[in-house]
Amino acid sequence: MNLTKEQQQEIKDQQSQKNVTKRVTSFELEKILYEAILVLDYGFIRVVDYMGDDSSIVQSARVSYGKGTKKVSTDEGLIKYLMRHWHTTPFEMCEIKYHVKLPIFIARQWIRHRTANVNEYSARYSILDKEFYLPEKENLSAQSTANRQGRGDLITGAQAEEVLQILKDDATRTYSNYEKMLNERFDGTIIDEKKTGLARELARMNLTLNSYTQWYWKTDLLNLLNFLFLRADSHAQYEIRVYAEAMLETVKKWVPMTHSAFLDYRVGAAHLSSKGLKIIKSMLSGKEVKFEDSGLGKREWNELMETLELKNKLI
Amino acid sequence: MNLTKEQQQEIKDQQSQKNVTKRVTSFELEKILYEAILVLDYGFIRVVDYMGDDSSIVQSARVSYGKGTKKVSTDEGLIKYLMRHWHTTPFEMCEIKYHVKLPIFIARQWIRHRTANVNEYSARYSILDKEFYLPEKENLSAQSTANRQGRGDLITGAQAEEVLQILKDDATRTYSNYEKMLNERFDGTIIDEKKTGLARELARMNLTLNSYTQWYWKTDLLNLLNFLFLRADSHAQYEIRVYAEAMLETVKKWVPMTHSAFLDYRVGAAHLSSKGLKIIKSMLSGKEVKFEDSGLGKREWNELMETLELKNKLI
Amino acid sequence: MNLTKEQQQEIKDQQSQKNVTKRVTSFELEKILYEAILVLDYGFIRVVDYMGDDSSIVQSARVSYGKGTKKVSTDEGLIKYLMRHWHTTPFEMCEIKYHVKLPIFIARQWIRHRTANVNEYSARYSILDKEFYLPEKENLSAQSTANRQGRGDLITGAQAEEVLQILKDDATRTYSNYEKMLNERFDGTIIDEKKTGLARELARMNLTLNSYTQWYWKTDLLNLLNFLFLRADSHAQYEIRVYAEAMLETVKKWVPMTHSAFLDYRVGAAHLSSKGLKIIKSMLSGKEVKFEDSGLGKREWNELMETLELKNKLI
Amino acid sequence: MNLTKEQQQEIKDQQSQKNVTKRVTSFELEKILYEAILVLDYGFIRVVDYMGDDSSIVQSARVSYGKGTKKVSTDEGLIKYLMRHWHTTPFEMCEIKYHVKLPIFIARQWIRHRTANVNEYSARYSILDKEFYLPEKENLSAQSTANRQGRGDLITGAQAEEVLQILKDDATRTYSNYEKMLNERFDGTIIDEKKTGLARELARMNLTLNSYTQWYWKTDLLNLLNFLFLRADSHAQYEIRVYAEAMLETVKKWVPMTHSAFLDYRVGAAHLSSKGLKIIKSMLSGKEVKFEDSGLGKREWNELMETLELKNKLI
Repeated sequence: MNLTKEQQQEIKDQQSQKNVTKRVTSFELEKILYEAILVLDYGFIRVVDYMGDDSSIVQSARVSYGKGTKKVSTDEGLIKYLMRHWHTTPFEMCEIKYHVKLPIFIARQWIRHRTANVNEYSARYSILDKEFYLPEKENLSAQSTANRQGRGDLITGAQAEEVLQILKDDATRTYSNYEKMLNERFDGTIIDEKKTGLARELARMNLTLNSYTQWYWKTDLLNLLNFLFLRADSHAQYEIRVYAEAMLETVKKWVPMTHSAFLDYRVGAAHLSSKGLKIIKSMLSGKEVKFEDSGLGKREWNELMETLELKNKLI
Repeated sequence: MNLTKEQQQEIKDQQSQKNVTKRVTSFELEKILYEAILVLDYGFIRVVDYMGDDSSIVQSARVSYGKGTKKVSTDEGLIKYLMRHWHTTPFEMCEIKYHVKLPIFIARQWIRHRTANVNEYSARYSILDKEFYLPEKENLSAQSTANRQGRGDLITGAQAEEVLQILKDDATRTYSNYEKMLNERFDGTIIDEKKTGLARELARMNLTLNSYTQWYWKTDLLNLLNFLFLRADSHAQYEIRVYAEAMLETVKKWVPMTHSAFLDYRVGAAHLSSKGLKIIKSMLSGKEVKFEDSGLGKREWNELMETLELKNKLI
Repeated sequence: MNLTKEQQQEIKDQQSQKNVTKRVTSFELEKILYEAILVLDYGFIRVVDYMGDDSSIVQSARVSYGKGTKKVSTDEGLIKYLMRHWHTTPFEMCEIKYHVKLPIFIARQWIRHRTANVNEYSARYSILDKEFYLPEKENLSAQSTANRQGRGDLITGAQAEEVLQILKDDATRTYSNYEKMLNERFDGTIIDEKKTGLARELARMNLTLNSYTQWYWKTDLLNLLNFLFLRADSHAQYEIRVYAEAMLETVKKWVPMTHSAFLDYRVGAAHLSSKGLKIIKSMLSGKEVKFEDSGLGKREWNELMETLELKNKLI
Repeated sequence: MNLTKEQQQEIKDQQSQKNVTKRVTSFELEKILYEAILVLDYGFIRVVDYMGDDSSIVQSARVSYGKGTKKVSTDEGLIKYLMRHWHTTPFEMCEIKYHVKLPIFIARQWIRHRTANVNEYSARYSILDKEFYLPEKENLSAQSTANRQGRGDLITGAQAEEVLQILKDDATRTYSNYEKMLNERFDGTIIDEKKTGLARELARMNLTLNSYTQWYWKTDLLNLLNFLFLRADSHAQYEIRVYAEAMLETVKKWVPMTHSAFLDYRVGAAHLSSKGLKIIKSMLSGKEVKFEDSGLGKREWNELMETLELKNKLI
């Protein structure tokens, strides 16, 4: 169950609000405001507040560059220009706040993005819910042999069954023991009236890293895009990527022009080293460039060939 | 003139918006949204966007502390509790954006508060307006002799007239020469069609530090309060204090419970050193404490006596 | 075992360095540079680099205030002055870097201090060591009934034995299963040559939160003091407090004048609300102040009485 | 005069230090430590402290990636790898502190880089020196007509003379009036013993933006490189670029491997949009690509042709 009954009621209440405001409003984002978008087996993201839209970026860019921006006739043109030339500060003028439910080992990756405000559910004060992440079979990958941090082929058959059984059993047992040490169940029932339970701040150490936690996470649009650039990328761990992908969809609703410029100038873009650029120039002038003369290492050469969709990859 | 005609029109347009939103809305702040609150002779602040209200702080605190916060029955009680115990992160969940017009020498103080997003009018791109700050006579203070950074008695009479004349003449002349070097007037008129003007990024160096600039400045509530604590304080320079005071009024409209807790636990509060605390304990137990036995320096002793409104100050 | 053989050798090598430098050098800190100071059962902190000392703070304060600081004759006096008046930026001019080994549930608290640079051991790339925190019996406290986040009386006897057994068994079992899923032991031995192991980034989710991790953590002196103020405090969880206390000792060696001012103006200091201050003034003028007339809540009243070591606490 | 006598003596004293340390030491940087590298007519930069070197980056990367980094055999290879793949946190493990003297209008650009620690000479406390920036004739450019923020052709002859005369006269006059209002000369002489001067915090507003100020500026290597990427670039204003270029030379002495990777993967690199990349792929497969079919705007097309050194630019 991704949402408790209380949370479902809270969302219903929040969505029934109808306030009048002079602030700019993002029509498409309003439609899904507060709504829980389900991620993984028990997680979700939901947008719980926002400030500004595409026009806010344009507005502050026009303050900065003054009459200088009049030449760029459309808002969309200006946003593309800002994105292309890394004029980043206008994108900081929009802000968004998410409520996120996610496994702890993913929360530990996520929090490394420091330029954000966070309020996390505290297991010093309260008892964590009895929920932990178990991967779907189609995400149960082996360690990559080519790449130290990547995933390789799927693990299947009996081995896959065994892995899932381990994950389930260990999380269940450690949670039961968590309750036993607390002398209290997740629903508040006291187990043994004659005992006092272990302090919550201590008992929590027995939980496994796939336990779910929750937080409010608030950041500006620039830092959100930096986060999404890294975490919606194919090199990101699957379990954080699905969160990033869900958030990218909310960005599309919120600031569609920025979203489109982001796809063109960031997500789908390529970064070439000075040596890589030199090679392309040679190629375009009709010369054949060989690996031996490229000045690149083997790995770097292959990355370049891949970027350019050329077949000269080395083995 | 604090506002250009274009700005007046922009404000009118912005204020006529009537959008429906599911976001929380601050009723009192909405009333003055976009409105220019005049500060100094040509400056202003205006709130141009915001996110959240007192209830947003409560909401994220309740996420953090979970069922632990149920004991604090009211929102106001919880906000006071958070402020008193320096539980600061829930206050980061609200965000506000100001449009500010201010003299450059004040902008230089202001920008030292780093945790904010800024878009400033760029004099590399555009010509600055012909506006500069001239103090009122009642703010024309002499250098304090007691305090290296403070102001002393008022300067009056002929000396005051002379100071004001100097400030006016120098700003006017340097601005005229700015236009001459640019070969362009502030309204865009070319001065000599046969010449090209000096680059704007160079010509601006001739302006004096009381020239007005403008920016959009966005920050979260916690960092705003930190800014106001320092800048609305009696030790702050008058010219930045008037901005801070105007902003403090907008905070009162936006998040009244937080504003009230801020006055009690920050603005009107006292910070005692361990030695100072020991002295108070002695006094309360009926002992007389003399400066010689206090372990404090003279200046520190006097500051303590002032805090406690006691007459034992040393000269 | 807190340190691996490799780490012991690395420390030995680092400590044998003898470089000549024109930089300022902290004599006392050099003595313990690189040394592992043991914390908890398997953890440690060690200072691995630093920049500046007390004189660096003084130097940059004198640049800021120019001739204005000449009146304060001694370095110690100036540092006390800066600390007392919250002139914080000069303390940012010193930097320190720690290597820390700590349980994951403590790392999660620690990382909330955002103004720091961090490189953590990555369990996506590498296998975590087989080490997990088990509390000593004298730290096995029950949940406080008075305070939602505090600890109460000790848990003793059979219940204590059971708790320790659970923590040990669960950590051991989940670690063994971690190895089984990886198909690889912590020392690199492959378990079953015919199998490929689960991706490390997935297998780690089975570990409990008392598993140890490691990181390099670098911050400036101001932010370090803010961290220590909160985490060396009696309200902090014991398991992070012992780290903070060990670090506070390194601060004493590094910047002794700053350390002393920090104890006086921060650690041992008291913060009074405007209402609290008013009560003290009344008391000092000889009036009796009763709770009913204080304007304080019961909890706040008790906190004040405790600060002042008065007996008027309410029950 | 870039350096006062006192500063010259201070540098001499600082350079005569010979401390023994166990910290890593950058041999080439030590040679120029404290030395003033002159910039513009009165400015300078000097490295006054540092922490770490190339080996520190490697060290923390190896902590993060554990045994995973053993495959990359050399330090240089690892640093290139980190730079190429935007693994940025290890570069945050080095720190550097500069003492900089620079014109105020440049200080205003510089301070926009927020992730740094700053202590600036305060004109609230002290009197600014009688020094202001006057451009050399070969830097006296006209406003670009093509680019709103760029410089165009040189201004020459009588117009150039006039500009320089204006800048000199206005700065001299406003400074004299600054002294008059202060009733005190820059060397501390009182002008009229019977008068008290205007508060320094007020008088300073009469100074022009080419007045020199000074600060200590401290940042980590990652943020320094971000600063240099933007400010040592040909699009940066000349007057900040010369500072950035001087600093880039100190980076070369400090962390030569990082400097080399920075030139290859950042300074000389190219960033292609997804559309731009598609065009290159088409060209490399032998197709001719016309502007009309490119999906790019005219300006973007020209930028791409320039990057690739192709002649198909539109006029």
